[in-house]
Amino acid sequence: MFVPPERAGYDRTPVMYDPSGRILQILYARRAVSQGTPSCGILFKDGALVAGRRKISALLMPNKKVFQVDEYIVATFAGYSSDGIFLVEQARDRAATLRFVYGSEKPDVYLIARNVSSTMHQATLYAGLRPFGVSIIIAGKDLTGSHLFFNDPGGSTVSWKAGIIGKNSSVGEEFLMSIFKNTDLTNISFDDAIKYAIAAISVASGSMPMAEEIEIGYVKDDEPATITTANSAEIKDLYSAATEVFNEWKAKRKTGEEETEEGTEETEE
Amino acid sequence: MFVPPERAGYDRTPVMYDPSGRILQILYARRAVSQGTPSCGILFKDGALVAGRRKISALLMPNKKVFQVDEYIVATFAGYSSDGIFLVEQARDRAATLRFVYGSEKPDVYLIARNVSSTMHQATLYAGLRPFGVSIIIAGKDLTGSHLFFNDPGGSTVSWKAGIIGKNSSVGEEFLMSIFKNTDLTNISFDDAIKYAIAAISVASGSMPMAEEIEIGYVKDDEPATITTANSAEIKDLYSAATEVFNEWKAKRKTGEEETEEGTEETEE
Amino acid sequence: MFVPPERAGYDRTPVMYDPSGRILQILYARRAVSQGTPSCGILFKDGALVAGRRKISALLMPNKKVFQVDEYIVATFAGYSSDGIFLVEQARDRAATLRFVYGSEKPDVYLIARNVSSTMHQATLYAGLRPFGVSIIIAGKDLTGSHLFFNDPGGSTVSWKAGIIGKNSSVGEEFLMSIFKNTDLTNISFDDAIKYAIAAISVASGSMPMAEEIEIGYVKDDEPATITTANSAEIKDLYSAATEVFNEWKAKRKTGEEETEEGTEETEE
Amino acid sequence: MFVPPERAGYDRTPVMYDPSGRILQILYARRAVSQGTPSCGILFKDGALVAGRRKISALLMPNKKVFQVDEYIVATFAGYSSDGIFLVEQARDRAATLRFVYGSEKPDVYLIARNVSSTMHQATLYAGLRPFGVSIIIAGKDLTGSHLFFNDPGGSTVSWKAGIIGKNSSVGEEFLMSIFKNTDLTNISFDDAIKYAIAAISVASGSMPMAEEIEIGYVKDDEPATITTANSAEIKDLYSAATEVFNEWKAKRKTGEEETEEGTEETEE
Amino acid sequence: MFVPPERAGYDRTPVMYDPSGRILQILYARRAVSQGTPSCGILFKDGALVAGRRKISALLMPNKKVFQVDEYIVATFAGYSSDGIFLVEQARDRAATLRFVYGSEKPDVYLIARNVSSTMHQATLYAGLRPFGVSIIIAGKDLTGSHLFFNDPGGSTVSWKAGIIGKNSSVGEEFLMSIFKNTDLTNISFDDAIKYAIAAISVASGSMPMAEEIEIGYVKDDEPATITTANSAEIKDLYSAATEVFNEWKAKRKTGEEETEEGTEETEE
Amino acid sequence: MFVPPERAGYDRTPVMYDPSGRILQILYARRAVSQGTPSCGILFKDGALVAGRRKISALLMPNKKVFQVDEYIVATFAGYSSDGIFLVEQARDRAATLRFVYGSEKPDVYLIARNVSSTMHQATLYAGLRPFGVSIIIAGKDLTGSHLFFNDPGGSTVSWKAGIIGKNSSVGEEFLMSIFKNTDLTNISFDDAIKYAIAAISVASGSMPMAEEIEIGYVKDDEPATITTANSAEIKDLYSAATEVFNEWKAKRKTGEEETEEGTEETEE
Amino acid sequence: MFVPPERAGYDRTPVMYDPSGRILQILYARRAVSQGTPSCGILFKDGALVAGRRKISALLMPNKKVFQVDEYIVATFAGYSSDGIFLVEQARDRAATLRFVYGSEKPDVYLIARNVSSTMHQATLYAGLRPFGVSIIIAGKDLTGSHLFFNDPGGSTVSWKAGIIGKNSSVGEEFLMSIFKNTDLTNISFDDAIKYAIAAISVASGSMPMAEEIEIGYVKDDEPATITTANSAEIKDLYSAATEVFNEWKAKRKTGEEETEEGTEETEE
Repeated sequence: MFVPPERAGYDRTPVMYDPSGRILQILYARRAVSQGTPSCGILFKDGALVAGRRKISALLMPNKKVFQVDEYIVATFAGYSSDGIFLVEQARDRAATLRFVYGSEKPDVYLIARNVSSTMHQATLYAGLRPFGVSIIIAGKDLTGSHLFFNDPGGSTVSWKAGIIGKNSSVGEEFLMSIFKNTDLTNISFDDAIKYAIAAISVASGSMPMAEEIEIGYVKDDEPATITTANSAEIKDLYSAATEVFNEWKAKRKTGEEETEEGTEETEE
Repeated sequence: MFVPPERAGYDRTPVMYDPSGRILQILYARRAVSQGTPSCGILFKDGALVAGRRKISALLMPNKKVFQVDEYIVATFAGYSSDGIFLVEQARDRAATLRFVYGSEKPDVYLIARNVSSTMHQATLYAGLRPFGVSIIIAGKDLTGSHLFFNDPGGSTVSWKAGIIGKNSSVGEEFLMSIFKNTDLTNISFDDAIKYAIAAISVASGSMPMAEEIEIGYVKDDEPATITTANSAEIKDLYSAATEVFNEWKAKRKTGEEETEEGTEETEE
Repeated sequence: MFVPPERAGYDRTPVMYDPSGRILQILYARRAVSQGTPSCGILFKDGALVAGRRKISALLMPNKKVFQVDEYIVATFAGYSSDGIFLVEQARDRAATLRFVYGSEKPDVYLIARNVSSTMHQATLYAGLRPFGVSIIIAGKDLTGSHLFFNDPGGSTVSWKAGIIGKNSSVGEEFLMSIFKNTDLTNISFDDAIKYAIAAISVASGSMPMAEEIEIGYVKDDEPATITTANSAEIKDLYSAATEVFNEWKAKRKTGEEETEEGTEETEE
Repeated sequence: MFVPPERAGYDRTPVMYDPSGRILQILYARRAVSQGTPSCGILFKDGALVAGRRKISALLMPNKKVFQVDEYIVATFAGYSSDGIFLVEQARDRAATLRFVYGSEKPDVYLIARNVSSTMHQATLYAGLRPFGVSIIIAGKDLTGSHLFFNDPGGSTVSWKAGIIGKNSSVGEEFLMSIFKNTDLTNISFDDAIKYAIAAISVASGSMPMAEEIEIGYVKDDEPATITTANSAEIKDLYSAATEVFNEWKAKRKTGEEETEEGTEETEE
Repeated sequence: MFVPPERAGYDRTPVMYDPSGRILQILYARRAVSQGTPSCGILFKDGALVAGRRKISALLMPNKKVFQVDEYIVATFAGYSSDGIFLVEQARDRAATLRFVYGSEKPDVYLIARNVSSTMHQATLYAGLRPFGVSIIIAGKDLTGSHLFFNDPGGSTVSWKAGIIGKNSSVGEEFLMSIFKNTDLTNISFDDAIKYAIAAISVASGSMPMAEEIEIGYVKDDEPATITTANSAEIKDLYSAATEVFNEWKAKRKTGEEETEEGTEETEE
Repeated sequence: MFVPPERAGYDRTPVMYDPSGRILQILYARRAVSQGTPSCGILFKDGALVAGRRKISALLMPNKKVFQVDEYIVATFAGYSSDGIFLVEQARDRAATLRFVYGSEKPDVYLIARNVSSTMHQATLYAGLRPFGVSIIIAGKDLTGSHLFFNDPGGSTVSWKAGIIGKNSSVGEEFLMSIFKNTDLTNISFDDAIKYAIAAISVASGSMPMAEEIEIGYVKDDEPATITTANSAEIKDLYSAATEVFNEWKAKRKTGEEETEEGTEETEE
Repeated sequence: MFVPPERAGYDRTPVMYDPSGRILQILYARRAVSQGTPSCGILFKDGALVAGRRKISALLMPNKKVFQVDEYIVATFAGYSSDGIFLVEQARDRAATLRFVYGSEKPDVYLIARNVSSTMHQATLYAGLRPFGVSIIIAGKDLTGSHLFFNDPGGSTVSWKAGIIGKNSSVGEEFLMSIFKNTDLTNISFDDAIKYAIAAISVASGSMPMAEEIEIGYVKDDEPATITTANSAEIKDLYSAATEVFNEWKAKRKTGEEETEEGTEETEE
């Protein structure tokens, strides 16, 4: 549970520890993440996907929640969108450099994720900067297979099988855990991955979003990345399947919508 | 609703999060925006427009509220005018560079909007700077069609169909929503767009401004941008039509003039 | 009305917004301006003028209140004189550069005014600087006609028809408004412009200054700028006429000398 | 015992001593270390090893707790993982440079450890930085034999025979001391070293972790470094042996699980 | 009258305005000036002089109070002597540069005074500096005649006919005003100028200093500058005459020695 | 006696004097020194030595307390070991440079000591740094004979005959003074020097350390420096002799173990 | 008398004036000087000398209190010795440069003194530095004769006939004044100068130091500088003479040993 620090002062800069060794500005930045709309990522048999919920309004073009980083790499984020876009653009530049310098057709996904998290880490090392208020999920394929990386405001990169960020992410995580605890996640089918991703976002959202609100990006088999929405022809049926999963989950636990406090887990190893 | 932060100190710099993950200096900068005279933008069938209310005084040359950025791009802003001019001039430089470097006759509107929002974002990343106290609406046409972008003090760029900024922008937004919720906004006619833009500004102003107080910039069909005022020959009739719309709206809701508190929405995704 | 900020701290640097979106150090800098001796500017039929009240003392050379910027450009300021001279010298350098680089016989007045206000704006963007404690009025002619620009400590440039800065400028502005509200200001004669400028300064001063205390700079027709004083041969009679205007005004409103609180208007659009 | 400093203020920056000569930010950084999962290192007859406990979850790829630095060098850390990775990557760069510049097949382990601790030391010398919140154990072989170095957030490098860092490291240290106080540590066998390393981690963890949770890296005889887990074929039996040692220890002292306060020892000589 | 600012904090740096638009650090620097021994300057028919009171002690070489800046330029100051010497040396460098670059036999006195005041102004613009705690009087002749300039800690240059700085300068100024209010100051003789300068310093000192305590520097007719003391052959008689003037003044007003509070006049125009 | 400064604030940075002219951060850094294990240095007939007490533990390689700087130069320190190593490495670099640049076989010991103390002094001159928390003793021979230098956190270099630093150094100093007050220190034999060094460290330690805990470095006659421990063949007997001296001292004064407060002596001349 | 500033805050940095125009950090630095052991300087008929009291201890090489700057220049200081050595070394560098660049056999003493005081002045102009805590006396001969300069922490250079710095310097100054008030100081003999210098140091010390504690440096006639002590052959008799003078003085005033408060005189002119 998140406890606001009573002793004011330790939480003013990312270059100050509090007496228990915490860097509070990083914790606060994670709070910014936990207020964004949910995004998730899942690794499946021959690929990886990210999905997120975008805002639909009569006055807005649908906002982007999934971004193409390179031919075989997609990303999504939760938190301050301007920080997110900044980092996505850096990831694109890095991918372009890798292609140019190393002549690699499929740039290494870990190198790109580390390049982004390295920038995020720098922002926790120097006074006069602030940690980035955003978490990023990067999914892609390279010469070593499919990958799904999660970058935290503290600057760490974690290799995921599946996960969810943003508002009520702990409930979404609970849902994913209940599905996957007995499954070899890396062996689930593309269809299952999409279905559970949509369901996880719905669980975190507390209700089923409209199909067009869910944006999905994936890399599969040997094809370049696809970015689409849940009301597209190929996803529509999976959206329906996800609705069922969501309803089952909801039925099973009446208390699932309660907002859970989160964001205090520190990334220590 | 905007709540002034009791715990002083978190709101002193854009590089400090408060315990709930907010960057208060960005919220305060949005308050500067919400005190400027209203400006709006609307995308229509074959183009896009921006419009704003300028000050008319016997002792002043009418001040500029709409600015030409490039042959096919116009902009308006609300907030601190010196910050706004600074960013408009940057947008002009960027457009000139794009023409020079890429030889493009119609520079890409998104690239220009992103260049401006990137500068605005930088001002939220480093201690010793302040967020820009201005929001900017950029409308234009390029090789990919018509575009309308909104830049926020936090550094994000949002792709709009229609929107309004400045004093009482939430009332103006309510008006626009009531008109457009059942319309495919990208298909409305130029005349309707002008009419509703004038009406929206009037709604936010609380009363109908004089025709000469409303400055309008638009790109339409294949013609370069035009900047004019509502008392010009071609707009005069639309101003009258807008007056009717305004009166209907006012009649419908007696409470429309109440000032609504705003400015606390954070741009998280 | 100016209200001193109770919550200390928001007013320590120009890179901090207070919770209502104001940058208090800029407001305070405007207070420095509002304590200087009055200066005014008026645009007339074929030219523009600035005028100001200087100090006369047996021990001092009469101080300069009007400055030549270029052959066809003059300026005056109110506030901290050392800040003012600094900016006037920058304006002169800019004019010289424009002549040298562009070979223009008459450098563009707006470019020079913007160059100065840009420097003033920078001083509101970075910590460790202070806004300039001075407002400047620049009058001049160039290839596009006569111009009168006002630069504010916040960094904005406003195109004036007529205006007044310094001590009691709001009373002076009231006077100018009463004279000009029914006049096309850009069409008044040189003689009227001089007369009203002297009267406006007298109104702001609360009493008629001696003729030699009023310094005037103007550009008229195709002649280079002239800087003179109100006791010179060509102005003497207009000074007498201004005295009459001043007495009428004083008679009309007994309450005209009351000092009016000012300086809180923010330059938002 | 750690006593939080009452007189606030001395603990805000690594460039301030408190009145008793302590640099509190370094002590706080050590608290971050003492909250990480445990890692240990042991020197044995013809080699050296590091081992650590990693997190296993259905949703995560098993996280890395042991890292290859060079062909004959491995490392582990406890504390903020992003700080740890940053320093491990620096160690890799340093090793590569040593190879390139000096043509050494086996880069000097001390030089690499010092290079890392030097960076950690710099972070305690300048305002505007923070000490690294991580301790690192580096084990390796070079032309001068086997080495085991411990780097502290304060920037010191200590040459270990055996040691443990992270949560409850003082209990783990007590265990190691009880085993080794009468042994010439540099002469124990590889098998014993592995067994006691696993047992020490278990003691600090308070219970026996699953075999796959324990990651081990070692250099032995003339072979390049091996990184494996305790459920691998060659370690499995040693894991069982360690379980026995752990149970004996636990039986011997009922109070072994009590968390001991630590982290205040300063590295003074 | 000087009122110490109650609201602590506005007076900590020259880059902060107080709510009434004052820069308090500049006012405080003027207080340093008003505690120095008095110096004065007077313009006369064909020249200009500065004079000041120096300290005489058995243990010291008589300290310098008047400095040669260039062949035809002299200077004196009141306030922190190390700041004064620093600026005098800068003035000398500037004069040398003007000679070298422009080949002028008599460098322009205003350019040199402005160069010094420009440095003094810079020290009021940036955080991390302090205003210079010194006022300087520069007297000299150039191609445009005789000049007497006064530089203030705020960075302004004022063209004087006569004036006095340092301890009790307001009493000295009162004396000068009583003498010169009905005189065309620029037409007084060299002898009168010397006499009144000595008397003014004596008035500010409260009693007649010894002749050797008064150092005088002047430029006259076409001769290079002379620096001498009041006990020299050519000044001795004028010192006696000044003693009479001083006694008359003292007789006229018994209250002349009362110390007058000063230093709060801001240099606004 | 050390008195903690009541008026908080003067002790936050090495660039601030307290009202009595003390730089408190330097005093605090000396407190760090006075908590390290003791080290001493003694000049003898044809050489100089340093000695210190190191930590012995079953889990650690014996830590280094004496360091070789150059062929004929050794050093020891007390305080933060990471600061000490940093400065020892700088001393080594300086020695290597002196050899390379000046071709000197025996680099000048004073130049090396001054180079180190100069770095230590810099750290007391600039904000944003902290004084080094370490004192260093450097012993060596060069073309001008044997030398023993002591460097203080304040940046001064003192030429010693004998001295001791670290915990209870004042008791150790008392012991050395009692031995040497009637001796020409520079004429004592190597054996006596070793004996008294071991005894002094024991006196400061409060009890006799084990022979292997005492590390000794010396330069003697024309031989390069030797670094050894008190349990080595050539020192063993001297250790026994020292034990006797220690016991005598202890017998003589029962109160010798009382810890004496120290660290406030400022190095003023 | 020194009064500690009640209003905390004005005394934190050398770039802040207090409301009465004082720079308190400079006053505090002078307090550091007034705690050093006394040093003095005297100008005599054909030369100049400095003398100071050094510490003698069985454990120390006698510390240096007088330093050779150049062949004909010597210096002494009181205050923080590390600051003093830093500045003496700078003086040496400056002298060497003057020799090299200008080919002068006897570098100008004033130029060297100014170079040092200029560095001391810089340290009072910028935030993040501290004034030097030392006063320096420089004595020497050059082509213009003998000179004796005193440099203050505030950065001023004063030309002395005689003077004393350090502990109880005001009592020492009183003594010097009593001796020299009726003497043409520049005409006293070398022997008298030495005698009075020793006596002045003794007066400030409160008792007669041992002859070897007094170090003396002088330049006389055409000979290069000599640095010696009061127990040397040529000074011994003068030391005896000084003892008599001291005893006379002590007899004359029983109250001479009372410590006098000092250090608040500001160097204003």
